Amino acid sequence: MNTLIVKIGGNIIDDPCALTGFLKDFSKLAGAKILVHGGGKLATDILEKLQIPVKMHEGRRITDAETLKVCTMVYAGWINKSVVAQLQALGCNAIGLSGADGNVLRAHRRLPEPVDFGFVGDISADAVDVSFLTALFEQGLCPVFCAVTHDERGTLLNTNADTVASTLAIALSKAGFTKQIICFEKDGVLSDINNPQSVIDEITEENYALLKEEGAITEGMIPKLDQAFAAIRAGVGEVHIKHARNLLSGKGTVVRKTRD
Amino acid sequence: MNTLIVKIGGNIIDDPCALTGFLKDFSKLAGAKILVHGGGKLATDILEKLQIPVKMHEGRRITDAETLKVCTMVYAGWINKSVVAQLQALGCNAIGLSGADGNVLRAHRRLPEPVDFGFVGDISADAVDVSFLTALFEQGLCPVFCAVTHDERGTLLNTNADTVASTLAIALSKAGFTKQIICFEKDGVLSDINNPQSVIDEITEENYALLKEEGAITEGMIPKLDQAFAAIRAGVGEVHIKHARNLLSGKGTVVRKTRD
Repeated sequence: MNTLIVKIGGNIIDDPCALTGFLKDFSKLAGAKILVHGGGKLATDILEKLQIPVKMHEGRRITDAETLKVCTMVYAGWINKSVVAQLQALGCNAIGLSGADGNVLRAHRRLPEPVDFGFVGDISADAVDVSFLTALFEQGLCPVFCAVTHDERGTLLNTNADTVASTLAIALSKAGFTKQIICFEKDGVLSDINNPQSVIDEITEENYALLKEEGAITEGMIPKLDQAFAAIRAGVGEVHIKHARNLLSGKGTVVRKTRD
Repeated sequence: MNTLIVKIGGNIIDDPCALTGFLKDFSKLAGAKILVHGGGKLATDILEKLQIPVKMHEGRRITDAETLKVCTMVYAGWINKSVVAQLQALGCNAIGLSGADGNVLRAHRRLPEPVDFGFVGDISADAVDVSFLTALFEQGLCPVFCAVTHDERGTLLNTNADTVASTLAIALSKAGFTKQIICFEKDGVLSDINNPQSVIDEITEENYALLKEEGAITEGMIPKLDQAFAAIRAGVGEVHIKHARNLLSGKGTVVRKTRD
């Protein structure tokens, strides 16, 4: 079975018009597909209003018990169910999932050394129940994942949405061709950060090193591309990096093993 | 397929020890089963902390847009996913659902006349996708429902948890024998409100009228029993009314059509 895994981030979640437009496009995609969504600003807003201090370490949130509660409420509750309801209205038979539902995505709490990030989960590719997902696809269902997982001992864990998308894509690649689409705020990987038109169409293992050497790839993009290549090496067919508004168009950067 | 539908209310949700004990017992029940949970005090606490005024009409909450957001966060997010994660830890393959997920439970917004309750959904028995539930049972999954539904037009709706449980039980009764268990704060229907030991073991259509005439059934219990008999008349095999701590014991009141 061929599968498409699309990940959207907070910039789309926080913009109701952009989200509606994206979901319209997403609902038109044929075949087995999964949507993974990030969080957006709502959790931070609610944490502030509830006067729960937002603790960060090097730009990453520390998830204490109260923060986990709010993140689960916002990600698995309001965002996930609103997206599912909107997709249903568009004729896409969506089903919202956390990693705990059907035990589909198992994780373990990150070790507290050197930094204790609290209730944060790390997952591995063999932690995905592929047969459960395949059964959903066979029923014509479209899983919509929030980035909340569990440790199989009753504890929910806040997880990185990019990692969730990438883990699902890798696991599903054992069962067929898997294409992953990562939506972000630019049209693709740019060769000139100051020129939004300078989208690099294709990046392969061959030209990646060269592009980095030339300084054509900015530092901020390197972790994203490294993760994309890690997914490709683990079996994912293609990773597309593009703007959510271009979901149905060819515009964007395709990352693949070798030249097409 | 025989199915068991168990409903727990806010009194159990609000008591972590009672909830853990209940979930242990629930996980031991064999066969196809569904858990429906109510809300508890967390939504009200958060509404208060966020300074969203709680509007009521004759003891029933009016759900405006902000209230719907908080209710969805709390019911479909934190409570639903915590319950699912706890059941998973107990070896019960739970999957959390709102009515929007898989379009399993369709509703319509209640008419604004004579009182506008806001984003409140009314459902009917033919709005349940029984084949979706049957497919989940066949995969060994246990659906865990929060009382949030949708109108198929993209709007989520706050719904009465007793109605959700009763609607599911009636719909599933077309596919086999259905037993519904309603957990509440007493051991069963009492013949003497001041004597917690005075549990009526069995209420049938025959003795219900008589019990009411004798004044043996208090007014507060009449809507609950009327709803139970409505479910029985619509096909449900038995409705048990009992305390959550007695889930695995025979203690409680059984409502059925005729004497066993």
